[in-house]
Amino acid sequence: MPKMVVVGTIAFDSIKTPFGETDSTLGGSASYAAVAASFFTKPGIVSVVGSDFPEKHLRFFESRGIDTAGIEKAAGETFRWSGEYGMDINIARTLETKLNVLSSFSPKLPEEYRKADFLLLGNIDPELQLKVLGQMRKKPLLVIADTMNYWIENKRKKVLEVVKKADICLMNDSEARQLFGTPNLVQAAKKILELDSRLAIIKKGEHGALLCTAKGCFTAPAYPLENVVDPTGCGDSFAGAMMGVLAQSGDLSEDSFRRAVMYGNTVASFNAEGMGLQRMLALSKADIERRFREFREIVRF
Amino acid sequence: MPKMVVVGTIAFDSIKTPFGETDSTLGGSASYAAVAASFFTKPGIVSVVGSDFPEKHLRFFESRGIDTAGIEKAAGETFRWSGEYGMDINIARTLETKLNVLSSFSPKLPEEYRKADFLLLGNIDPELQLKVLGQMRKKPLLVIADTMNYWIENKRKKVLEVVKKADICLMNDSEARQLFGTPNLVQAAKKILELDSRLAIIKKGEHGALLCTAKGCFTAPAYPLENVVDPTGCGDSFAGAMMGVLAQSGDLSEDSFRRAVMYGNTVASFNAEGMGLQRMLALSKADIERRFREFREIVRF
Repeated sequence: MPKMVVVGTIAFDSIKTPFGETDSTLGGSASYAAVAASFFTKPGIVSVVGSDFPEKHLRFFESRGIDTAGIEKAAGETFRWSGEYGMDINIARTLETKLNVLSSFSPKLPEEYRKADFLLLGNIDPELQLKVLGQMRKKPLLVIADTMNYWIENKRKKVLEVVKKADICLMNDSEARQLFGTPNLVQAAKKILELDSRLAIIKKGEHGALLCTAKGCFTAPAYPLENVVDPTGCGDSFAGAMMGVLAQSGDLSEDSFRRAVMYGNTVASFNAEGMGLQRMLALSKADIERRFREFREIVRF
Repeated sequence: MPKMVVVGTIAFDSIKTPFGETDSTLGGSASYAAVAASFFTKPGIVSVVGSDFPEKHLRFFESRGIDTAGIEKAAGETFRWSGEYGMDINIARTLETKLNVLSSFSPKLPEEYRKADFLLLGNIDPELQLKVLGQMRKKPLLVIADTMNYWIENKRKKVLEVVKKADICLMNDSEARQLFGTPNLVQAAKKILELDSRLAIIKKGEHGALLCTAKGCFTAPAYPLENVVDPTGCGDSFAGAMMGVLAQSGDLSEDSFRRAVMYGNTVASFNAEGMGLQRMLALSKADIERRFREFREIVRF
């Protein structure tokens, strides 16, 4: 039984950045999050793929200790996303989204996933996130939910319900500003805390992340990367690695969350150094530990 | 003889933010920088005011240990700026700029300023910054120059000459991206270092600052402020406090610079909490030390 379950998309991504190009490679929020988590724990994936999805990708997940029992194979084609990044590599322009089998997806958790202690609701329709929550046999120790501007614009009430039900709802700075109608991130974090969240984590892309509790804030820097090759999946890698670390230790103290956020930043920074999942696949645990330690020097004063 | 000299503008500012309004109050880059520096050292100001400039402002500077021998009183009116901030308090909209006596200003340093060890060239025309540098009798231990997008757009070559001649040229993230034609701040910092700077400091507003040397980077967080009342002068307060700390200790090691940047962030964060210079004037050294120590807890992991 996996300690940690990741719900999200599996996709074929076609990405173009000033530094490289991929065509129909494995991607999607669940793929990035599960691969990032796999450095620390053996997560299970809940997602859907089409009949065109090659066995080799499933074998690949399994080779990393990722449980694939929750990946449903539906008739039709796998979800496809294509996007492009310009010289300001932080801004993605979506060229095409083909939902395919994702459009009629209704997640059904394998029985052994329903008692998982750690549940990561990756960026999918908030109604699906709520459906997954309803299938759990017991309240997980920790539920982290991710979201995006598209859902905030189109299903604001459902997103707020997810924020309320999850322990932590991840959003980036512009999403938090949009959802709570304030340009001030500390104010947005306070509003997240008022919605019953144990702590608020706001992702700030190249500026790192902000973690706030009722007691105060932790500012987590991003790794000062000189060469960002492809930022696709960085938010998912951040969430996956963060929760993987927490699932591994089982420690939910604030100090443990601070370290987990820094592991999230570490793995996400590596992810940005290669096209698609490439850099993460070449990564060792020692690489991660080295950069994690480097972060202490980066913030020292 | 002041150890530290600040060159910049003295202005009458009229500011409107969602949280307050001021009319013709004391402002300008030299005022903010000198007041911020005055917590740590007794700086001298080089600037120009008009015949309408009240004596009480000069007395005010002196009451803070600021030397006013370098403030020239010219015939005409004092420089005036009026600006407005919207709900996204980080973006200033200039309503009016009246250069007045500033338009024909040619800085002339009092003889006792020409051997100062610490020279802060606040945000003024880069040609005036170069003129000041030419008047120094000996090479100062440390020259920090500030600039802004207006000069980068209109006098790019002169700005690059200042970057080359100063030990440190402060710019904010968008200015660095603009000057060096790269969206990547670490790359921009490397280009600053190539221009003979001993270290590069890029201000990132609400995201803090980045300090880079050939050896690596220091990411300095901004204080997580919940209520930003008026950000006018935050960049100048940052620069003034930073150099004030360095002038006080005389220590130019990298560790000392890291601490100085954090004192700069500390004083700038206080400055944003009140209209104009208001908050800084009510500030004690103990307040500064308390927030500086709080920063250690904010970055701890």
